[in-house]
Amino acid sequence: MNSGRLEAFSDGVFAVAITLLALDLAVPHPGGPHHPSLTDQLSEHWPSFAAYLVSFLTIGIIWVNHHTLFNNIAHIDRPLLFLNLLMLFFVVSIPFVTTTFADYLRDGGFQASVAGAIYNGVFAGMGVSFALLFWWTIRHEHLKTALPPGAILTAVIRFGIGNVAYLAAVGVAFASPAAALLMSGLVAVYYVFEQTPRRNGPRGDPTTGDEQPQP
Amino acid sequence: MNSGRLEAFSDGVFAVAITLLALDLAVPHPGGPHHPSLTDQLSEHWPSFAAYLVSFLTIGIIWVNHHTLFNNIAHIDRPLLFLNLLMLFFVVSIPFVTTTFADYLRDGGFQASVAGAIYNGVFAGMGVSFALLFWWTIRHEHLKTALPPGAILTAVIRFGIGNVAYLAAVGVAFASPAAALLMSGLVAVYYVFEQTPRRNGPRGDPTTGDEQPQP
Amino acid sequence: MNSGRLEAFSDGVFAVAITLLALDLAVPHPGGPHHPSLTDQLSEHWPSFAAYLVSFLTIGIIWVNHHTLFNNIAHIDRPLLFLNLLMLFFVVSIPFVTTTFADYLRDGGFQASVAGAIYNGVFAGMGVSFALLFWWTIRHEHLKTALPPGAILTAVIRFGIGNVAYLAAVGVAFASPAAALLMSGLVAVYYVFEQTPRRNGPRGDPTTGDEQPQP
Amino acid sequence: MNSGRLEAFSDGVFAVAITLLALDLAVPHPGGPHHPSLTDQLSEHWPSFAAYLVSFLTIGIIWVNHHTLFNNIAHIDRPLLFLNLLMLFFVVSIPFVTTTFADYLRDGGFQASVAGAIYNGVFAGMGVSFALLFWWTIRHEHLKTALPPGAILTAVIRFGIGNVAYLAAVGVAFASPAAALLMSGLVAVYYVFEQTPRRNGPRGDPTTGDEQPQP
Repeated sequence: MNSGRLEAFSDGVFAVAITLLALDLAVPHPGGPHHPSLTDQLSEHWPSFAAYLVSFLTIGIIWVNHHTLFNNIAHIDRPLLFLNLLMLFFVVSIPFVTTTFADYLRDGGFQASVAGAIYNGVFAGMGVSFALLFWWTIRHEHLKTALPPGAILTAVIRFGIGNVAYLAAVGVAFASPAAALLMSGLVAVYYVFEQTPRRNGPRGDPTTGDEQPQP
Repeated sequence: MNSGRLEAFSDGVFAVAITLLALDLAVPHPGGPHHPSLTDQLSEHWPSFAAYLVSFLTIGIIWVNHHTLFNNIAHIDRPLLFLNLLMLFFVVSIPFVTTTFADYLRDGGFQASVAGAIYNGVFAGMGVSFALLFWWTIRHEHLKTALPPGAILTAVIRFGIGNVAYLAAVGVAFASPAAALLMSGLVAVYYVFEQTPRRNGPRGDPTTGDEQPQP
Repeated sequence: MNSGRLEAFSDGVFAVAITLLALDLAVPHPGGPHHPSLTDQLSEHWPSFAAYLVSFLTIGIIWVNHHTLFNNIAHIDRPLLFLNLLMLFFVVSIPFVTTTFADYLRDGGFQASVAGAIYNGVFAGMGVSFALLFWWTIRHEHLKTALPPGAILTAVIRFGIGNVAYLAAVGVAFASPAAALLMSGLVAVYYVFEQTPRRNGPRGDPTTGDEQPQP
Repeated sequence: MNSGRLEAFSDGVFAVAITLLALDLAVPHPGGPHHPSLTDQLSEHWPSFAAYLVSFLTIGIIWVNHHTLFNNIAHIDRPLLFLNLLMLFFVVSIPFVTTTFADYLRDGGFQASVAGAIYNGVFAGMGVSFALLFWWTIRHEHLKTALPPGAILTAVIRFGIGNVAYLAAVGVAFASPAAALLMSGLVAVYYVFEQTPRRNGPRGDPTTGDEQPQP
């Protein structure tokens, strides 16, 4: 059993979830007499755009990592299918938690904190289930190319940084929901730049930077 | 004619249907003066979250089984395309029946029973059409590896358990809609664990557990 | 340039369009004091369910035919990409015209006739653009296996029957919108059964019935 | 790392975005006593249909070009994944900006100009990020077949024409939003016909016209 269909199904879910994000940007149709202008609506809508950006980037990065991980997987088994399904469960939830967070962030207060905690909680769930996927593939020797111990340690540290940051953001949301959104945005930016060839240096091929699963 | 495109189209439908499920979780936007708080809405929304979980897991499992079945199919014919389309018809209906059931479950009463019966009826339709797909592939010798008679009997028993449970849940919905939801949840959990390598023991390779179509 | 990505993109569009159809089945959420019961809503909603069935089957069949046609295509060129895009334009419009037709069919009158004419007009557009796709592949010798003249004539007759029926249904919609819906349903059923191995007899392999492009 | 999954994920996003466009065509359900007729609504809705056509064609063309570009790419690296993600970011935004532009175009005035500027701004963003993708593949020698300098110059000119036109349309929107929509429609038509075999003449195979990346 190769990983072709697992990847196709996952790609479909990633693609639908990332595209549905933009549905939530919709501004109410004009028409009523006291209808706010588009410019007013867009400037009031900033939390929607900020949350859209962070969620888009986060789904994009998890797709890049999923792609890189499965590139090195020789065969899959049933537990792997279900661990992947667990991760997709969190991906599918992202459009919902993004809209909810954006809506309540505008109002502020305790409800915005709850929405922010749920938002970062879903990201933490996605991160942890991706780490489980990675752990299962190492543990059961599914990889085409075995990873050197150094690479595994590096991966564990990286997973740790993201997941600890998401969990911390759940707590931060109760002090400042906007700061919690900023934190998940910074995690996304970190994962974009962490993997560039230049910094990968000794761990991979400096030209392509994709010889190893890069979690 | 190989099964590549049938799988790609089916994966697309599974991916869209499973992702659309989460659209129904949306809580009304805040704004009005008497607007309920997010925490109140989330706690009132429990049937939506419970139904979302059950439907997500059910679509996930039918995808895993579809994947496993077509892994062992050597070629496809026109009736197989239409049997597959019949099964997808029920998959496509799941987001609709999930929302409807969740909405009416909150109110209770006879209308919730009707919604629960439709919900489990769609699951039964999906289960029966998947069994037809399996039967067609055995009957017309489309399989790469012929199944031993014991495996066929096991498969028939498993299909039977799921389909009988769904049909029973249609009836149970008129006594207790919540119990009917619980029943379809238990069927999903049963299908997750039924196929683990350990219990597959003598019927397949204990390491991967995916050598045979596992319906 | 092989047809892999054209098929993948088309499969995506088919899958999203067929799944979005069911979004339109949604009944209004309960809650208000004078809210109609679910059973009342479902029985009033019959045009939605009938139109959903016809549209689902029509998209399903066009997918089966697309699949069969491209199975026999050796290479693709730029005009083929755009003819395929033209056909997808009509596929993408189907969820919109289905909802609109279903909504207005309930009210009846001239507005229902207009909606029915648009609905069948989109089906006719899809049928004609599929015929153009087929014609282009014959005309420019893209096929892996050349078709015997008899098969081409048969194909032309079949395309003709469907497209003439759709165009007739545009007119019939002004006499009876429900009859127009019935007509497009009958065209779909015709295309399901027209291709069964038994009736294909002398034109193809009676076992699989898929040796030739079956438009 | 080959480009298979990058293409599959991108195809998914293109397919979902192009299909979601039609969701915005929905006319309000009939029912109320003063409800406008379908024919009135459809004629008032012309900006929605015009914007739908332009956006459909634009996404279709960018897909054709993406397909052609990646047909000639031998391997991909991490920066390419992120440049592709940047381009998809704009693709995902298209359904939102299309609805917004269509809604405000009907009202006219300054708000329609802002909506038109955003609409063409997103198209410009998509065009520029596609040009970056192309530039990266030339610069880092990812191509299977190196391009002759003449082809590169031709490509740069073509990218230039589209992107300059989109940026000009951002400005034109403040004079006439409808003219800005017309401009992006003309760019789309230009890209359809620019690549036909006849005019490709000396630069490619006149039969298929797809031997080179056609940006």
